[in-house]
Amino acid sequence: MTTYDIALIGFGGVNRTLAELIATRGEDLRKQLGFGLRVVAITDLRLGSLVQDEGIDLAMALGLGTGSETFAEHGGSAEPDNERVIRSCTADIICEATFTNPDDGEPAVSHVQWALESGKSVCTTNKGPVALRGTELTELAERNGVHFEFEGAVMSGTPVIRLAKKMFAGLKLNGFEGILNGTSNYVLGRMEAGLAFHEAISEAQQLGYAEANPAADIEGYDVQLKVLILANELLGARIQLADVQRQGISSLTLEDIREAAREGLRWKLVGSAERKPDGTVTAAVGPVALPLDHGLAGISGATNAVSFSTDLLGPVTVSGPGAGRMETAYALLSDIIAMHAKQNRVAAHV
Amino acid sequence: MTTYDIALIGFGGVNRTLAELIATRGEDLRKQLGFGLRVVAITDLRLGSLVQDEGIDLAMALGLGTGSETFAEHGGSAEPDNERVIRSCTADIICEATFTNPDDGEPAVSHVQWALESGKSVCTTNKGPVALRGTELTELAERNGVHFEFEGAVMSGTPVIRLAKKMFAGLKLNGFEGILNGTSNYVLGRMEAGLAFHEAISEAQQLGYAEANPAADIEGYDVQLKVLILANELLGARIQLADVQRQGISSLTLEDIREAAREGLRWKLVGSAERKPDGTVTAAVGPVALPLDHGLAGISGATNAVSFSTDLLGPVTVSGPGAGRMETAYALLSDIIAMHAKQNRVAAHV
Repeated sequence: MTTYDIALIGFGGVNRTLAELIATRGEDLRKQLGFGLRVVAITDLRLGSLVQDEGIDLAMALGLGTGSETFAEHGGSAEPDNERVIRSCTADIICEATFTNPDDGEPAVSHVQWALESGKSVCTTNKGPVALRGTELTELAERNGVHFEFEGAVMSGTPVIRLAKKMFAGLKLNGFEGILNGTSNYVLGRMEAGLAFHEAISEAQQLGYAEANPAADIEGYDVQLKVLILANELLGARIQLADVQRQGISSLTLEDIREAAREGLRWKLVGSAERKPDGTVTAAVGPVALPLDHGLAGISGATNAVSFSTDLLGPVTVSGPGAGRMETAYALLSDIIAMHAKQNRVAAHV
Repeated sequence: MTTYDIALIGFGGVNRTLAELIATRGEDLRKQLGFGLRVVAITDLRLGSLVQDEGIDLAMALGLGTGSETFAEHGGSAEPDNERVIRSCTADIICEATFTNPDDGEPAVSHVQWALESGKSVCTTNKGPVALRGTELTELAERNGVHFEFEGAVMSGTPVIRLAKKMFAGLKLNGFEGILNGTSNYVLGRMEAGLAFHEAISEAQQLGYAEANPAADIEGYDVQLKVLILANELLGARIQLADVQRQGISSLTLEDIREAAREGLRWKLVGSAERKPDGTVTAAVGPVALPLDHGLAGISGATNAVSFSTDLLGPVTVSGPGAGRMETAYALLSDIIAMHAKQNRVAAHV
């Protein structure tokens, strides 16, 4: 049976959870999926790096983090040393779950690039590399005969990108609209329940839904990246970030929300894209007052959803978690499963 | 390029629409999907049967139906002659879209059986064969090295069965709950708007949503079959129709609906199944008063939805059309696309 050697770049919540899954359910997964996973490298800003071709002791690695110990005390280095590890380790697949600067996608973009250049497949949960450099990185992967997968970049492990690519064969996809940010959706729901904007934000922060600086979620920057990804990947839009019009929800008042309710409407932060008759694609993020019987009006709390507009089926909507450690770790697993399926098809054709 | 010869068994709305798709968009589909489709046989209760190995003139066939002409005037027979046509025609794939008796699944069950026995793959939109004889027919297909696909049996072309089988790899599916009948959902919505039960039914009948005898939709028989299919196919339940508890919506009064609304609840006809800790699966259909923030509470009108309960992702819901000629014809097309993908994998492995 095939075993894939993997490297975990970034050992925060997501890759840590993936490591836990491999440690506790590896045998189950092996039986169910037909392949095994072995972690041969881990890098982390705080813990440093560890490379062990024969497989890392995951119990040891998962035990680190609370104290001051680093991988230096376990045969590794106190430095993450990402480039050297990514380029020189023996991993088949790099699981990239660090962070991404919304301006240039770094450092995630470089991590992906180094991996693909050195002939390793990549799965990433970061939006930056896909949104800002997707075409280029996909081509780089193709040239090197490896895979570049990123289901987790939109709605964590809820199948969205892969669903649209696999389940809609024979259909024309004309556009989509989605609720793609759980924080802003939670805030709008709480405002509907009567809280002022700043009260709703504070509550979301206390619950861990919103960051100290909530602008990325509230002002639509996060959704803008996701819309860009979906528009380019699913509609072949070939657009840039600046082409996605963006407006957040901070200008909505309690009175706006009450007035909408009186008219049977509900404000949602909607990210959407549409193919125009001339073939071009327009894309935008902004608050929209939806009728209550609209498919997205009932998406509440931190749940995310995308409604796809298809020619033969009409609208088809998928909703599910938009974030979460386990949910995002599963996205990486689903990427590896997809790579395995492609690999088997290629192998069979040779 | 591969061309699949297909036979259309039943030439009502669904297979007629499939024929229209092939006639008008065959070339597009060929480019997009990598295979062509040629109709070599059609049978129909009213039109009789026509078998032409070199391909039937679809414009001619689609022109029949309104007058008294049958296939007898076009080189065929006035008799449908289903068994002979299915067994002896040169089709690779039988598209079965006749009807199904909820007691024994006939005549659809026999159509499927004859096709599989004679080494032809089958796609069907009928619930009966899958719900009542699914295991046996799947085994028959496997023994004969052919395919048996039935995406259209639940929620027409909205990907549900295939979605759960393909998109949830590596997850444990613990159950599902769904709104699986558009007619009853429409009726409940109209009652919420103030119509009495019988008024809502009349309106649904006038709009063509409900049959003259609406019992199958209203009393939950239709959903019972769909729950049985999903429980057996997706949860490996190995249960029979009688194991799916059934209750319809006819006992719900306007007062029930108003009272629920006062409590922030909404009645829905919910079909569900759940895997118990001992591994057995329980399944039921019945009215459930859902909280308004439940993922299924906002599914309105004739839209259908299924919410899957998974271990790593939590609930993932897909909603879309539950019926419709084009939507169901697309289900058949999606089945053929799936067969083509499997065929290619098999061919590549040989």
